[in-house]
Amino acid sequence: MIVKKIGIIGLGKVGQAVLESLKKYSSLVARRSAVKIEIKKVCDIAAGKKKLASKFSLDFSSDPFELIRDPEIDIIIELIGGLEPARKLIIESLRRGKDVITANKALLACSGKEIFSLARGLGRRLGFEASVCGAIPIIKSISEGLVGCEVRKIYGILNGTTNYILYKMAKENIDFSSALKSAQKEGYAERDPRLDIEGTDALHKLCILSYLCYGVWPEFKKVYSQGISKISLLDIVCAKDLHYRIKLLAIAKKEKGFLDLRVQPTLVPIEHPLASISSAYNAVYLDTQPAGELLFYGEGAGGVATSSAVMSDIVSIASSKQNLIRREEKVVIKNIENIKGRYYIRFMACDRPGVLADISKILSARNISIASVTQKERNKEKFVPIIMIIHEAREKSIREAISEIDRLKVIKSPSQIIRIEDL
Amino acid sequence: MIVKKIGIIGLGKVGQAVLESLKKYSSLVARRSAVKIEIKKVCDIAAGKKKLASKFSLDFSSDPFELIRDPEIDIIIELIGGLEPARKLIIESLRRGKDVITANKALLACSGKEIFSLARGLGRRLGFEASVCGAIPIIKSISEGLVGCEVRKIYGILNGTTNYILYKMAKENIDFSSALKSAQKEGYAERDPRLDIEGTDALHKLCILSYLCYGVWPEFKKVYSQGISKISLLDIVCAKDLHYRIKLLAIAKKEKGFLDLRVQPTLVPIEHPLASISSAYNAVYLDTQPAGELLFYGEGAGGVATSSAVMSDIVSIASSKQNLIRREEKVVIKNIENIKGRYYIRFMACDRPGVLADISKILSARNISIASVTQKERNKEKFVPIIMIIHEAREKSIREAISEIDRLKVIKSPSQIIRIEDL
Repeated sequence: MIVKKIGIIGLGKVGQAVLESLKKYSSLVARRSAVKIEIKKVCDIAAGKKKLASKFSLDFSSDPFELIRDPEIDIIIELIGGLEPARKLIIESLRRGKDVITANKALLACSGKEIFSLARGLGRRLGFEASVCGAIPIIKSISEGLVGCEVRKIYGILNGTTNYILYKMAKENIDFSSALKSAQKEGYAERDPRLDIEGTDALHKLCILSYLCYGVWPEFKKVYSQGISKISLLDIVCAKDLHYRIKLLAIAKKEKGFLDLRVQPTLVPIEHPLASISSAYNAVYLDTQPAGELLFYGEGAGGVATSSAVMSDIVSIASSKQNLIRREEKVVIKNIENIKGRYYIRFMACDRPGVLADISKILSARNISIASVTQKERNKEKFVPIIMIIHEAREKSIREAISEIDRLKVIKSPSQIIRIEDL
Repeated sequence: MIVKKIGIIGLGKVGQAVLESLKKYSSLVARRSAVKIEIKKVCDIAAGKKKLASKFSLDFSSDPFELIRDPEIDIIIELIGGLEPARKLIIESLRRGKDVITANKALLACSGKEIFSLARGLGRRLGFEASVCGAIPIIKSISEGLVGCEVRKIYGILNGTTNYILYKMAKENIDFSSALKSAQKEGYAERDPRLDIEGTDALHKLCILSYLCYGVWPEFKKVYSQGISKISLLDIVCAKDLHYRIKLLAIAKKEKGFLDLRVQPTLVPIEHPLASISSAYNAVYLDTQPAGELLFYGEGAGGVATSSAVMSDIVSIASSKQNLIRREEKVVIKNIENIKGRYYIRFMACDRPGVLADISKILSARNISIASVTQKERNKEKFVPIIMIIHEAREKSIREAISEIDRLKVIKSPSQIIRIEDL
């Protein structure tokens, strides 16, 4: 039996769930893995959490450094989130010879390079299974299960809040703000939902997957990221008519030394498994060699689900000899302007002759060709939607053409542009 | 850098693909994991395979014991399949202090108990990722990723051939034998397809998952298993009208110390991710605590996909301290007769008044109540299908009632009974 003494910093929702799960399942873990997990001390800067610690008969401190300095603690589990003081606490823990487990995707996206290189230099282990897709063992699957694989493409639904909102809009024919309210009511969205709906949370996780698959920490502020707040019910309905669903996808594609990374609302063919990911679930689709296509699906957030990932990390640290080493590959991150793709465009235009000719002229001047056009309503009095599918074209050309089209008097700007991925 | 010397026994399709993958990806593996894989010798009883070995500049023997006795070889990779001599070779390898990797699900289903207990006693490692769902890292995900989880339910599409056949029948409106021919043409089915279509291959894999999740090796001949050869296009069409798809599911459910294990064609709600698993893909759906619902999807067979699992096993053996230990749980395997469920029943009956009354009478005498009845065609001259959905009832009662109904003169027996799982 290997005994691992842990210290937990942060007793919020996730921290509490980890305490519950360890209480409930640590005998199961010991039986299966021969690793005995002992909680040496727990910490929260809110001194009131002492009560919670007492409930579990655990030693409590409101000073994280008391845990970090404790020579008996083998593993520090950081569950406070945010950039500082989390970064400082993790770095100090590593320096003091402790292994670290963290669920902090924002911190890893910003400071992953520094933290991983420090851990590697000191021969320490870092567990971060909980940082991407909660309960799905995606970190272990990629780093160990697919250790011999090249990952050519990643398509991830990495944020449950946005998936819930898009799912609700499509299912119940409601607009964005009603769906957001429902998400907040159900506890799937924060009161300030920007981190989720603007795509930042998904981007944080994409950065971690990029490190895992390609050894590259992208400068996350430079990666293109677009949220879902501008997706209207009209777009969801029109996409459905064309046999697509709109999903917020985190995308990575590696080709000839170039890496295309982005987070954006995307039209996904309705029969693809990613299109059927419902509610607040997460999923990661991988196109690999030699393992082929893979999809992983499960609960992406919530303390209870996340606690499974934390237990797995503890056992991994206790029972394997080393972190898998990643060497940075020579990949250049592509500028989104140079990315080619197919697009869905929705114009709101006056319903009169000549409009389509004006639009087509501007597109053809930039060598952009139209795959299909649909005008659903007829109404001479007001602006009506014109839905266009564009053959493969460069993002930059599309954006330029649309901004020119949006200046036409017959167009109620701004037009909607959504990328199509023919998975 | 950890160096692992391996010997590969069996140079069939999978063996050759493993050689190709190791040639192509072992530098990637070394860079990521610091494990250097060296092929010391390869073996096939067909001496003609020496040519293949030469192509890869590898030492060859047609005597597997030459590899097993080689003191320099750390890991024996068994890829010959079948029960004997595979069993003997694995046992002898373990006794001689070697770790073993195998893709042999049939052998593990029959002799897993003996092999695992020997390996454990000798302190040796057994890698068997390739034995279930080829490229999907399901063994690692369950045993390590979900080390702290109770698995309450498993629903697996564990056999690609049968999924391909059912998918083809539904998609192209063709009958079983045409779909089977198409599967054989595409290389998804063997010339003798019985092991796949009768459900035996799926059952082998279910036994391995049962060991993994519950520590129990069921006596595999006693586990209820039914194939797909009796599924007609008519059933697929009728199921679709009721918003279901028919899938061959391997099912495990644990409840109050009882384990319900079986392989059978099942009606799955059309909107469930399992219903959308197309072509020859495999998928495993798990209902767990605390990790919630999870689904894993990917290529289940084929040498190339399987080679990824073999590489992962080599690295796992090289870099972790021990196999996770499984203690047998106290579970009793349920007799299928005592299992309760909802059922789809298709009778072929004379189209005349009173038939439904006769059927209903027999069902109600056994306390079986009807949820819905549909008769699609009208034809006084011949037998027409009557589709019935039955509320929850015991399998045994259903079977008895149906055998009584099938003796009615107005019924063209045998009637079709398919279980419904409301996932």
